[in-house]
Amino acid sequence: MALIVQKFGGTSVATIERMRRIAQRVCRTKKEGNDIVVVLSAMAGETDRLISLAKEASDMPDAREYDVLVSTGEQVSVALLSMILKDMGVEARSFISHQMGLFTDSSHTRARIMKVETGKIKGALSNGAVVVAAGFQGISSDMDITTLGRGGSDTTAVALATALGADLCEIYTDVEGVYTTDPNICPDARKLKKISYDEMLEMASLGSKVLQTRSVELAKKYSIPVMVRSTFSENNGTLVTKEGKDMESVMVSGVTYDRNEAKISLTRVPDRPGIASRLFGPLAEANINVDMIIQNISHEGYTDMTFTISKEDFKKALDMVEESARDIGAEDVLADTDIAKISVVGTGMRSHSGVASKMFDALAKEGINVIMISTSEIKISCIIDSKYTELAVRVLHEAFELNKENGGTVKEP
Amino acid sequence: MALIVQKFGGTSVATIERMRRIAQRVCRTKKEGNDIVVVLSAMAGETDRLISLAKEASDMPDAREYDVLVSTGEQVSVALLSMILKDMGVEARSFISHQMGLFTDSSHTRARIMKVETGKIKGALSNGAVVVAAGFQGISSDMDITTLGRGGSDTTAVALATALGADLCEIYTDVEGVYTTDPNICPDARKLKKISYDEMLEMASLGSKVLQTRSVELAKKYSIPVMVRSTFSENNGTLVTKEGKDMESVMVSGVTYDRNEAKISLTRVPDRPGIASRLFGPLAEANINVDMIIQNISHEGYTDMTFTISKEDFKKALDMVEESARDIGAEDVLADTDIAKISVVGTGMRSHSGVASKMFDALAKEGINVIMISTSEIKISCIIDSKYTELAVRVLHEAFELNKENGGTVKEP
Repeated sequence: MALIVQKFGGTSVATIERMRRIAQRVCRTKKEGNDIVVVLSAMAGETDRLISLAKEASDMPDAREYDVLVSTGEQVSVALLSMILKDMGVEARSFISHQMGLFTDSSHTRARIMKVETGKIKGALSNGAVVVAAGFQGISSDMDITTLGRGGSDTTAVALATALGADLCEIYTDVEGVYTTDPNICPDARKLKKISYDEMLEMASLGSKVLQTRSVELAKKYSIPVMVRSTFSENNGTLVTKEGKDMESVMVSGVTYDRNEAKISLTRVPDRPGIASRLFGPLAEANINVDMIIQNISHEGYTDMTFTISKEDFKKALDMVEESARDIGAEDVLADTDIAKISVVGTGMRSHSGVASKMFDALAKEGINVIMISTSEIKISCIIDSKYTELAVRVLHEAFELNKENGGTVKEP
Repeated sequence: MALIVQKFGGTSVATIERMRRIAQRVCRTKKEGNDIVVVLSAMAGETDRLISLAKEASDMPDAREYDVLVSTGEQVSVALLSMILKDMGVEARSFISHQMGLFTDSSHTRARIMKVETGKIKGALSNGAVVVAAGFQGISSDMDITTLGRGGSDTTAVALATALGADLCEIYTDVEGVYTTDPNICPDARKLKKISYDEMLEMASLGSKVLQTRSVELAKKYSIPVMVRSTFSENNGTLVTKEGKDMESVMVSGVTYDRNEAKISLTRVPDRPGIASRLFGPLAEANINVDMIIQNISHEGYTDMTFTISKEDFKKALDMVEESARDIGAEDVLADTDIAKISVVGTGMRSHSGVASKMFDALAKEGINVIMISTSEIKISCIIDSKYTELAVRVLHEAFELNKENGGTVKEP
């Protein structure tokens, strides 16, 4: 007998009919002798409906009241699924904000979890009930409803799994698992059986939005195994877990892409100490996240600087950079939004050196120019012209033989 | 400076635009120097939407989960109005189930209020905030959400007014107040300035659904003055209050009608002790409310019995009565759903005897046959053929001169 947390996303609870299918799955897992905590998102479309009401009410909706409003979405889901389960003869009990014991700080709309008091949930489980918990929401120490940020239901699931010492946290979604790359671009993309937390973090933050980054960090911290799988099939999904010995032999697990970045360059920047901080300080204060930064070596006291930011922040950032450029005496500011970031991710890279050169080779063979490069321990990213995105993904997927079960390796040169 | 509770119904918060109008009214009352507790219903249509989801999920939705579900309607309203008020520069704070201190028993979907702990609300008021409380919902001692039954927001408003010692409880609705009769039937129906709690109770339970009966009972018990008025105009409404000396001179305050009853008769019932209990016992057990009962005097050991019930219960009741009729040896069971109950209501009736005869005279003059009669201290009701409903209302309204400011009196015979 195990304790399993099962989280279902918005498309999985979009209709009562779909909820019935979930309920059958929960029933089955229950009848196999497991204790179950179900975590639900709002019905697909419901959160958007509530947000548009908030926007109609106020240009800058009060954060406390925003949380009171949007948290109703998950409350509706848990009530309905509990009804359905009880109708099927399974004892079930919904838990919402003030009942779940998921205490957060008071940062409304993006609250951080402080502690989870599991007494009430454990009580319900030991009475044989399926616990149906509202995702995304918590409660502050003064009993105000808080929310964890968009996609926060994944985090709720992992946090409850952690606090309850669950054996497994299953994240049910509308994809079959984590793939070697986007199957829409590369038809022979392969579903991974396993992936390490670190790889998943790189994949998620690079745009493979299967799991919320924060939930993966939490799972990693407490070593909670997370299974990503499909609500709509019986197939096994992808297990996100601790790095195992077997993973090291695979150098590259996946190829990801992100078309949501823009590039800003400053030319002929006087190369003096403090220039970088005068440029990036204001951006940081404005909460604009800078991703890649490249500074060329200095020529006659001048240098060029290039960096990327998300497209959402582009206009604001460009205005700020143009002002900074005048201050620091840069010659010109150039901008480009037609770029894409292509990355290969893999734990095995740590101990193998051939990955980068293989990546550049493969791109060069197709005449794809690499504009910027950045590397981390388990990831190499290149900025390229966005029109080559699909081509680059396919080329790299093939170069690393990711379609093969034993692919992703590089022969030592 | 006064403490005022203002309750707004579903049509008053049906859209963000209407909420803005409410917010302006609240602002104004606040700026006049008053402390304000606003109580809101769900946006019009929202509760029905949630109920239909529940019905889709289960034929008999679990009561606890039903309350979790439907209480989201009011939660959405209070969050949105609080946002709007804050946008207008008025400090406001929403209060929902677990924050309001409105403790109930655990009878889900029809919970009774046990106590109201006003500490948190008083704290917010003394900080100068407008309190925006979710109507219809409370919390049980084990912190489960409960609801007070349909229309329960009126009761929430009166309960909070009572617990807070409010000076006035205003119920904003889509009518201008309480009328001498239905203006749709009788164009010269007059809005009453004042009405006693008892009269309001008779009017409400007879079908003038302006205020939930339970809220009037509560207001009467604690002598909370309740003003019924329109959200959509600045006119004064009707004050529901303690019976004053001035009210006694008015014998009849209003004429009401109810087409929602059905009549069942048993003929040639053997007139033995215990017959009535054998007939009505099963109905009571099935929660079927019997309104009027008439038993004719006995002839040769046999009698006729007639009673009325609400149309919703008609089919079920008829089946039960037919069975009972066989048991007790009645000759036949007759049923009629084409009936209406016409009533005149007035505190002054207590001390005047001419009301009944004037009522029967007026009906007789128009050839309207009275099928059954029942009387209480402040009310006389007649069952008539439903096709005469409008005619009877107009005839009685005119007979008692209710269109006149000083109408409703009867000259002593």
